[in-house]
Amino acid sequence: MAEPGDSGRSGALQVRRAVVLLSGGLDSATTLAVARSRGFECYALSVAYGQRHAAELDAAARVARALSAREHRVMHVDLAGIGGSALTDPDIAVPEEPTSGIPVTYVPARNTIMLALALAWAEVLGAEDIFIGVNAVDYSGYPDCRPEFIAAFEKLAARATRAGVEGTPLRIHAPLIDLTKAEIIRLGLRLGVDYGMTVSCYQADEEGGACGRCDSCRLRRAGFEAAGVADPTRYRTM
Amino acid sequence: MAEPGDSGRSGALQVRRAVVLLSGGLDSATTLAVARSRGFECYALSVAYGQRHAAELDAAARVARALSAREHRVMHVDLAGIGGSALTDPDIAVPEEPTSGIPVTYVPARNTIMLALALAWAEVLGAEDIFIGVNAVDYSGYPDCRPEFIAAFEKLAARATRAGVEGTPLRIHAPLIDLTKAEIIRLGLRLGVDYGMTVSCYQADEEGGACGRCDSCRLRRAGFEAAGVADPTRYRTM
Repeated sequence: MAEPGDSGRSGALQVRRAVVLLSGGLDSATTLAVARSRGFECYALSVAYGQRHAAELDAAARVARALSAREHRVMHVDLAGIGGSALTDPDIAVPEEPTSGIPVTYVPARNTIMLALALAWAEVLGAEDIFIGVNAVDYSGYPDCRPEFIAAFEKLAARATRAGVEGTPLRIHAPLIDLTKAEIIRLGLRLGVDYGMTVSCYQADEEGGACGRCDSCRLRRAGFEAAGVADPTRYRTM
Repeated sequence: MAEPGDSGRSGALQVRRAVVLLSGGLDSATTLAVARSRGFECYALSVAYGQRHAAELDAAARVARALSAREHRVMHVDLAGIGGSALTDPDIAVPEEPTSGIPVTYVPARNTIMLALALAWAEVLGAEDIFIGVNAVDYSGYPDCRPEFIAAFEKLAARATRAGVEGTPLRIHAPLIDLTKAEIIRLGLRLGVDYGMTVSCYQADEEGGACGRCDSCRLRRAGFEAAGVADPTRYRTM
């Protein structure tokens, strides 16, 4: 078992490891800060699934370092090969106006795949906890951001792994699920997150400059406004 | 919608698509034959997860062609990077004697990951059916080959996708789950599977030559014996 990497944790006798899904956006950065504040030794996992906004992965690496993740790993899965989403298929435009229903930025089965990869790493690490920054309030209407999805994955995980058969099933934590974007931002600021490091835009440029118009930018900007704090996002000139 | 590719299907008015997980082994080849016999237009998916036995992927391509899959796709996920299994970590030896408990050839969360990828492709294709060749009788003691795992994944899929929210949830078919290896072989032979094309060995050589000693080889050989049919496996000289 590794040594505790964070002297701030509250005198746990044994280091508890957690895998934290980290996209590099606002929500997952906050989630990493929450996991750390609960005393976990955090293993940050970014999944490169062929998304357009590779700048998010650079942001994820910065955030992982800033929030003292024990390790940051990028796993590659080629979802671009199957397309079906504006985030992975360059022929589908990212909408710049609100839409109804499940939007075209929805990536088929994305959270299922990311949680499955987190589950695999958790099993190898002996981690019993996985954190994911899904949110069911100020979200984009994705089916795999709902509480019933998270509950179903936790039940699956309890049956899918060695731990589920032999010992403790894994827990899936979604600490942001009931929070508004403004509440998420206030929580993260209390926990020391530097949101200037994060990139949420669906079509960020290579340096992480945000478009300010996609769904994700709109939710983020409104969140800073509602929280009453300055928005550190660097918007690019279009 | 694509044209039917298989004139042998029983006069369905609409082509029903299915994603079939195809490793190139005996069980998944039989599963593809079953899906085809039920009138599905089959999209075969192989997942390259860093397994040692890449010969299986060549076998998968041959089997997909022989059984008239509409398309065969290989998706890459780097599970070798996280290790934790004799199938993905060259430092862990494949056992050549029976072991108790969950064996070291278990790949953490493998079937969860493969089903998640199948779910993504199914969603893009508009397929409502996924086939997987897991088997709970003559199996190796893997947690994710049990009926309760499949049932939990089906429940998850119903919550994870656009289809689950807007329409028909996907069905996960595990047609071999209650069959003995001998029954699987007899079923496959009736459906025209050429098992000489398949590779089951955990440490096959580059041409697919089987070791004859690993768990998978032992189960396969015993299956042909119990079925009372000739074993077409090419065992290499060790």
